[in-house]
Amino acid sequence: MIKTKDVHEYIDEHHSESLEALKEFLRIPSISAQSEHSDDIWKAAKFTLQQLIAAGLENTGLIANGSHPLVYGDWLHAPNKPTILIYGHYDVQPTDPDNKWHSKPFEPEIRDGKIYARGATDDKGQILGLILALQSIHAVKGNFPVNIRVLIEGEEEFGGTAIEKYVKEHAKDIACDAVLIADTHMIAPGMPSIVYGVRGILYAEIVAKGADHDLHSGTYGGVAPNPLHSLALIIAGLKGADGRINIPGLEEMANPVTDEERQWWSQYPMDMRQQLAHEMGLPFDAKAPEKTYFPGEQEYSLVERMSARATFEVHGFVGGYQGEGAKTVIPAEARVKISLRLSPNQTAEKVLPLLKKQVKKLAPKGVDVEVQFIHGGLGMVVDPHDPYIHAAVQSLGDEYKHDVYFLREGGSIPVAPLFAEYLHAPIVFAGYGLATECLHSPNEHFQLDNFYHAIHGCVRYLDAAARIEK
Amino acid sequence: MIKTKDVHEYIDEHHSESLEALKEFLRIPSISAQSEHSDDIWKAAKFTLQQLIAAGLENTGLIANGSHPLVYGDWLHAPNKPTILIYGHYDVQPTDPDNKWHSKPFEPEIRDGKIYARGATDDKGQILGLILALQSIHAVKGNFPVNIRVLIEGEEEFGGTAIEKYVKEHAKDIACDAVLIADTHMIAPGMPSIVYGVRGILYAEIVAKGADHDLHSGTYGGVAPNPLHSLALIIAGLKGADGRINIPGLEEMANPVTDEERQWWSQYPMDMRQQLAHEMGLPFDAKAPEKTYFPGEQEYSLVERMSARATFEVHGFVGGYQGEGAKTVIPAEARVKISLRLSPNQTAEKVLPLLKKQVKKLAPKGVDVEVQFIHGGLGMVVDPHDPYIHAAVQSLGDEYKHDVYFLREGGSIPVAPLFAEYLHAPIVFAGYGLATECLHSPNEHFQLDNFYHAIHGCVRYLDAAARIEK
Repeated sequence: MIKTKDVHEYIDEHHSESLEALKEFLRIPSISAQSEHSDDIWKAAKFTLQQLIAAGLENTGLIANGSHPLVYGDWLHAPNKPTILIYGHYDVQPTDPDNKWHSKPFEPEIRDGKIYARGATDDKGQILGLILALQSIHAVKGNFPVNIRVLIEGEEEFGGTAIEKYVKEHAKDIACDAVLIADTHMIAPGMPSIVYGVRGILYAEIVAKGADHDLHSGTYGGVAPNPLHSLALIIAGLKGADGRINIPGLEEMANPVTDEERQWWSQYPMDMRQQLAHEMGLPFDAKAPEKTYFPGEQEYSLVERMSARATFEVHGFVGGYQGEGAKTVIPAEARVKISLRLSPNQTAEKVLPLLKKQVKKLAPKGVDVEVQFIHGGLGMVVDPHDPYIHAAVQSLGDEYKHDVYFLREGGSIPVAPLFAEYLHAPIVFAGYGLATECLHSPNEHFQLDNFYHAIHGCVRYLDAAARIEK
Repeated sequence: MIKTKDVHEYIDEHHSESLEALKEFLRIPSISAQSEHSDDIWKAAKFTLQQLIAAGLENTGLIANGSHPLVYGDWLHAPNKPTILIYGHYDVQPTDPDNKWHSKPFEPEIRDGKIYARGATDDKGQILGLILALQSIHAVKGNFPVNIRVLIEGEEEFGGTAIEKYVKEHAKDIACDAVLIADTHMIAPGMPSIVYGVRGILYAEIVAKGADHDLHSGTYGGVAPNPLHSLALIIAGLKGADGRINIPGLEEMANPVTDEERQWWSQYPMDMRQQLAHEMGLPFDAKAPEKTYFPGEQEYSLVERMSARATFEVHGFVGGYQGEGAKTVIPAEARVKISLRLSPNQTAEKVLPLLKKQVKKLAPKGVDVEVQFIHGGLGMVVDPHDPYIHAAVQSLGDEYKHDVYFLREGGSIPVAPLFAEYLHAPIVFAGYGLATECLHSPNEHFQLDNFYHAIHGCVRYLDAAARIEK
């Protein structure tokens, strides 16, 4: 215990060096989706690699099996101790709209205890925190309480496949007992949170075809197939105003939600209605909160609808006329982009045929309708009683001196189910960000206290994991 | 009768001069929607004016009260005889896509008895036919059997307001007993047709607003208002798969269709199913024609649905993501463009509040919905037993030696109700075009025999009109 305390003292004494490293990292415009930043991607990868080397990791290198390199390093000298794989990403989102930023996205600026820059919270600040924890342990003790692997990718923000390819082909080379991911958020400032589930996704287009060329509604209105109208009928059939998804077989396939989970959700510290109204910019009257209406399945709680229930959303209709004013066209073809967020059992593979069947059933006569698969991603739920999760609860609770909340993410993190499937290891999502930190938006930032919590928290986690019996 | 025959002989002897005049007219690229053709518009107006002068008309001139001049001329020396106002337009549609034309759009070419050029059938070929009739009468007889006014506009193809302004302000200056319009089509080659009705139109956008900024469906799917989904529900509510428009009060307001009309429609010479399938590019099996399905109100005939019934069509959804691939956005705002084609009693003014009320009723909770009016146009039905219509039936029947069909146009011709309202005169739509002559499309053409029929037909019409007791 004395040794551990020494590491924490070391961390506290090196705040300014840590902050300088973070600023240096944030200055690299490693936007993975834009090819003009290809040199910056390599610069960020090299920076990350140097940080791993500085932490005393071995077998360090850049794995260039895809368009952007993976950064790898390990330290495997703790026999009979667990192996923890730390995952993160060094690439960032594009910065547009640039004119909405109060300071330049790649010139980090500290205001009011927060560091503003693209990538601050997603994910450079978080992953660097974990690496600095390794550096601190290495500097103070010379060795680690557990075996360590670090795998950091540069294609997370554009859905690249380098990591998938690598994990599938090299699962044995990165065998581990748990995967530690700091790329999620806490429920509120000062309230540590463990994400124990993510939803899967099925993204598709429904294509409807009518005549073989666009028609004039004056001449053919009333007898012509109208693919846009047909799609509206299909969408209305797939989900009504009550928020129910009408795809037979889908509900039966859902992972059951436990009483324990609903208990956790009911204990969340904020007024969810007020919070959501604030985040979405909906009017909210604290004296009459019921006046703010949130669409969806009213018989389920907001938390359950946002994180555990399947959802169906429309993202865009293509076809016809979108310009100014009027054009009286009946398009020959139209398409609608939709996605379903799914519980782990509701895999895209299993849901796609159900969706196709129902769309066919709902399609009005006179149009040809087809469902085109765009992409799918698995969801997952980690056993919250797994000892590696428990270790995270302990260490985050100690670090923040606050009870830990259990969350499920509404979105999809495809790499997590990939790790779970190929490494057969629990995924520990112990993130230090906040949902309000403008990730993917202008003025992204990261609370500096959480940056330092991430360094301490990781040290605590590795200590706690070391106590798990292999 | 001998005199009349002389005019027809004169016309037959001057085919080549008439054709040369048509070619000259067609060579002028008088595209009204494109400002780079502004000089060409004036050139076409001047050409038209010269043709009126050559017909012996008086008070000839260009009325430049709008962006493109109106061409006017009259001859008012037939006391106690009716006054006929001839209307047409000298402007043409744009030519894109240019690469689909087999010959250049402004280099008229004759192939297989048809003259190919932009404006050939819409409306230069038709209106010039009528003017050449006046020239022929003038050349042979020196005077006209009725009083004549000619008013030709240059903004028809872009919905300009010069003619509306002029008619409203100068109704007394162009007083007449009937308006003759040759800007419609015959039901089939060799089958003369009178259009006795046009539909009105109400074009609107339904705007739906949810959150105050775009949301990510992973985070907010299941609780967020989705304006696109809301619009799909509204559209599905406004018209179902059965083709019924669900706007309370609309049906009650419709002009009744008479048994006589249904009788006319049932006598149309072609197989409507086969014809429509051909025009729309739908599969058609002559042995099993019922296999081709035409959406809409199945309890009404195809003709009635296309020309007399109110229709509701969707033209485009704006909002969300229309690009390649996937974006999981829930847009803050979305809009849908819709139009209704309406019978004369169902004016846009009366229908708009009904639409607004129903949209409000259909709007799901959680979104703000508003109907924005884009434009409206009156429909009209002419009494087919009016003596001036009867004169057209006689003259077209004589000219083509074939029974005349009575049609209603599905589209809208806003100038016609304008004339009817301000001039209190019946509108005689006696057109010589065919619906298949690619008006508004590449390879527009006009059958040359119909060009000559238009010249003869107009002479016959003026003679027939002269016999109507004032």
